[in-house]
Amino acid sequence: MLRIGALERLVHQLNRLPGIGPKTAQRLAYQILREPDLSTGLQEALIAVRESVHLCTQCFSYTDEPAMCRYCADHSRRDDLLCIVEEPSDIVRVESSGAFRGRYHVLHGAISPLDNIGPDDLKIRELLERIEAPAKVTEVILALDPDLEGDTTVLYLAKVLSARGLKVTRIASGVPLGSDIDYVDDRTLGRALENRVEL
Amino acid sequence: MLRIGALERLVHQLNRLPGIGPKTAQRLAYQILREPDLSTGLQEALIAVRESVHLCTQCFSYTDEPAMCRYCADHSRRDDLLCIVEEPSDIVRVESSGAFRGRYHVLHGAISPLDNIGPDDLKIRELLERIEAPAKVTEVILALDPDLEGDTTVLYLAKVLSARGLKVTRIASGVPLGSDIDYVDDRTLGRALENRVEL
Repeated sequence: MLRIGALERLVHQLNRLPGIGPKTAQRLAYQILREPDLSTGLQEALIAVRESVHLCTQCFSYTDEPAMCRYCADHSRRDDLLCIVEEPSDIVRVESSGAFRGRYHVLHGAISPLDNIGPDDLKIRELLERIEAPAKVTEVILALDPDLEGDTTVLYLAKVLSARGLKVTRIASGVPLGSDIDYVDDRTLGRALENRVEL
Repeated sequence: MLRIGALERLVHQLNRLPGIGPKTAQRLAYQILREPDLSTGLQEALIAVRESVHLCTQCFSYTDEPAMCRYCADHSRRDDLLCIVEEPSDIVRVESSGAFRGRYHVLHGAISPLDNIGPDDLKIRELLERIEAPAKVTEVILALDPDLEGDTTVLYLAKVLSARGLKVTRIASGVPLGSDIDYVDDRTLGRALENRVEL
């Protein structure tokens, strides 16, 4: 690395991005030096995102609308179904399945005692306020990751939401479509057997 | 991807960086949204690089000094040896070998007819001016990549520089130290045999 303070600081900043190691950060920094246009474009995009993108006041997804996001503002969606996801990007995944036309709520993470993330660090208080307000929601669908943190969060939310008389469901785990049972891991196959569906 | 204009533009800009595909660009953009501190740090670093880093007036490497870079300004280095490299980052590689204490000249690329890059697109005119000025340089070492573009540039520079009465050399190609001859490719071994050194 050339010993130039500003260049080293740029490498350090790029290195903070997820999945960008020190070598990649150096390559990116040199490319940015080579193409000033790249630097301008990136700077303008970073400023635009900071100025225009914020959290939706209702579901806490990202939006550039003044208050509510496109999904919260859409009058054709069902108000009685609420899908809980960990991250705003999960909404795009659920949407593209085409199997859900209700509302969303983004937790911004999952409960993880190991990382010191408890219910108060997530948008759970906001979820409870939202559910209590006009009491339109009847079913809450938990679309959380089927990992340790997701499972912990599901247990917690199921208890809290059931106590409020809501129907709480979780998206099914099992054998992915188009896959080969031979290659599916034991725990997934175990879950698929447990959650078998009557025909 | 959430359909938010500013976010999509940020993904597009990140995607322009070398080795960053659309999926990685999305992951980076979401992380930047999640950590505003990351956005600020990156913005500041980009501005600082743009404001303070420019080309050295003598060797055309990058520097944040007002005129000449640390290597050109260093009085303890030999003025009669000039090492030609393709990119500023190559200087760091040559330096860390510890085998060179002369001056550098950066071409900013190599001749590549396929990419429409000819001698006029590189810092070759500046190289010739630099050599002619006080005529201190006696040997020019070409440390260019041993690929098609590097080879083409070496042929061109060897002709032009020899015509000016300079000794022109190229760094040796051959079997890397610590490697196993069994695993060295044919062309490298061929070159190693051709360039064998008398003991």
